Amino acid sequence: MYVYGRNVALETINNKIEIKKIILQEHFKDDKLLSQLKRVPAPIIYKKKYELDKMVNGLHQGVILQVPDYEYASLDEIIDKENALVVILDHLEDPHNLGAIIRTCEAAGVDGIIIPKDRSVSVNPTVIKVSTGAIDYVKIAQVTNLNNTIRTMKENGFWIVGTDMQGENYSDIDYSGKCAIVVGNEGKGLSRMVLESCDFIASIPMNGKTNSLNASVALGIVLFEAVKLRK
Amino acid sequence: MYVYGRNVALETINNKIEIKKIILQEHFKDDKLLSQLKRVPAPIIYKKKYELDKMVNGLHQGVILQVPDYEYASLDEIIDKENALVVILDHLEDPHNLGAIIRTCEAAGVDGIIIPKDRSVSVNPTVIKVSTGAIDYVKIAQVTNLNNTIRTMKENGFWIVGTDMQGENYSDIDYSGKCAIVVGNEGKGLSRMVLESCDFIASIPMNGKTNSLNASVALGIVLFEAVKLRK
Repeated sequence: MYVYGRNVALETINNKIEIKKIILQEHFKDDKLLSQLKRVPAPIIYKKKYELDKMVNGLHQGVILQVPDYEYASLDEIIDKENALVVILDHLEDPHNLGAIIRTCEAAGVDGIIIPKDRSVSVNPTVIKVSTGAIDYVKIAQVTNLNNTIRTMKENGFWIVGTDMQGENYSDIDYSGKCAIVVGNEGKGLSRMVLESCDFIASIPMNGKTNSLNASVALGIVLFEAVKLRK
Repeated sequence: MYVYGRNVALETINNKIEIKKIILQEHFKDDKLLSQLKRVPAPIIYKKKYELDKMVNGLHQGVILQVPDYEYASLDEIIDKENALVVILDHLEDPHNLGAIIRTCEAAGVDGIIIPKDRSVSVNPTVIKVSTGAIDYVKIAQVTNLNNTIRTMKENGFWIVGTDMQGENYSDIDYSGKCAIVVGNEGKGLSRMVLESCDFIASIPMNGKTNSLNASVALGIVLFEAVKLRK
C-alpha cells in the first residue's frame, strides 16, 4: 500500500516500518526528511507532480512511500470459532481510535475485529503505531457489506450487541456464546440498519454533563464487562 | 499562560480558545498563519528571537500566544465531600491521555482529579481540546507533593486504590466511601512511594499477549466498575 505526506513518512521511518519504495516529486526540497529517506534501504524514484497526484487521493507533499500491505484475515477465520467474541466497527473514521481499539481488543482476548471496506478507516501506519504491537496478535477482517456480514453472523448463531446511548445497562446483557459487540462512528454512532439488526443495545450509565466517552474507552468498558460475565 | 509553536497556534485559533496577546518573532514568515492571527481580536507584538527564547522553554517557531491561565481547583474543594470519588494521576506525561481521562472522569461523575505540579503534564490547549468540553465540568487540583497529599487524604478517611498489574481483580475491591483511584505514568506505572501508600491494588485480568491498555482505557474500565459497585 501507499502512504504519503511528510509527517507520515517521518513516522514510518521512526517506527521502523518496512519501506519497499520511495517515490519523490522532482526537486523534492525537504533536506532533513530527504537525508533520513536516503538512509532507508529502499530505491528512491523521482516522478513529476501529476504522476504522484495520480497515485494517491490526498495531500502527498511530494513524498509517497510503498509499504507492505497489511494482511487482513478472512471473515471465516474470525467467526468459525466456538463461542467467538468479535468486535465490529461500524464506519469508524479516526486511525487513533482504531489503533487504541486494536490494543484494547488484544488485551481482552477477542477473536477478531471486523471493519467495512468503504467509508471507514483501514489499517495504516498510524493505526499500527497506536496499537503498540497489538496489531500482530489480533485478526482483522475487511468486509464489503457490513449488513450482509451481520446477517451471515446471525445465521451462524451470533448475538449482536450494539453500543449506544438509549439501551439496557451494559452489565445486564447476556454476552455468552457467539457474541459480537458493535461500535458506531465517532460522530454519528451506529448506522440505522446496523442498529435494527442488533439483538441488544448496551448503554453505559453516565453521571456527568457532557456524557460522551471516547470510542476506545467506551468499548473497553463494555468489552471487559462482557469478558467478565462470559467466565 | 503561554502556548507556542505553529501547530499549537493553529489549534488554539481553530478551537476558539481566547487569545490575550500574540507575540511574533521579527520578520515572521508564515503568511498563512499570519493572516489567521491577524483576524484574532488580540494585540500583535513583534520581538527579537532571543526575547521569545527567554519567554518559553521550547521550540516556539516564532510564535507565542498568551491565553488565560487554566483555573485549578483547591485540594479542599475536591476532598472535602462526603463519599468523594477522586482520581489521582501519578506523573502522567501525555496531554492526549490527560484530555481523554478528563472526559472519562466527567462521564463517570468523579468529584475531582489531582495531578502533581512537577514532572507531569498540566492543563494546556491540547488537553482542553482532547477533553471535548468535559474540562469545564471537572475540578482539577495541582499539588506540590503527591505523597503528602495522599497522606492527608488517608487521614481524612480516603481509601487509596492503585491500578497496576500485580494486584487483586478490579471487580473484587471495595470502592465505597471516600475513595481515590490512582493511575501511574504511561511507561513507569505507579511510583514506589505511591504504590506503598495504596490500600488496594486493582488489576484488570488480561487475555492477550501484549497485555497493555492505554491509560485512559484502563482507568475507564476500573472507574466505571467502581461507580457501579458504589451504587
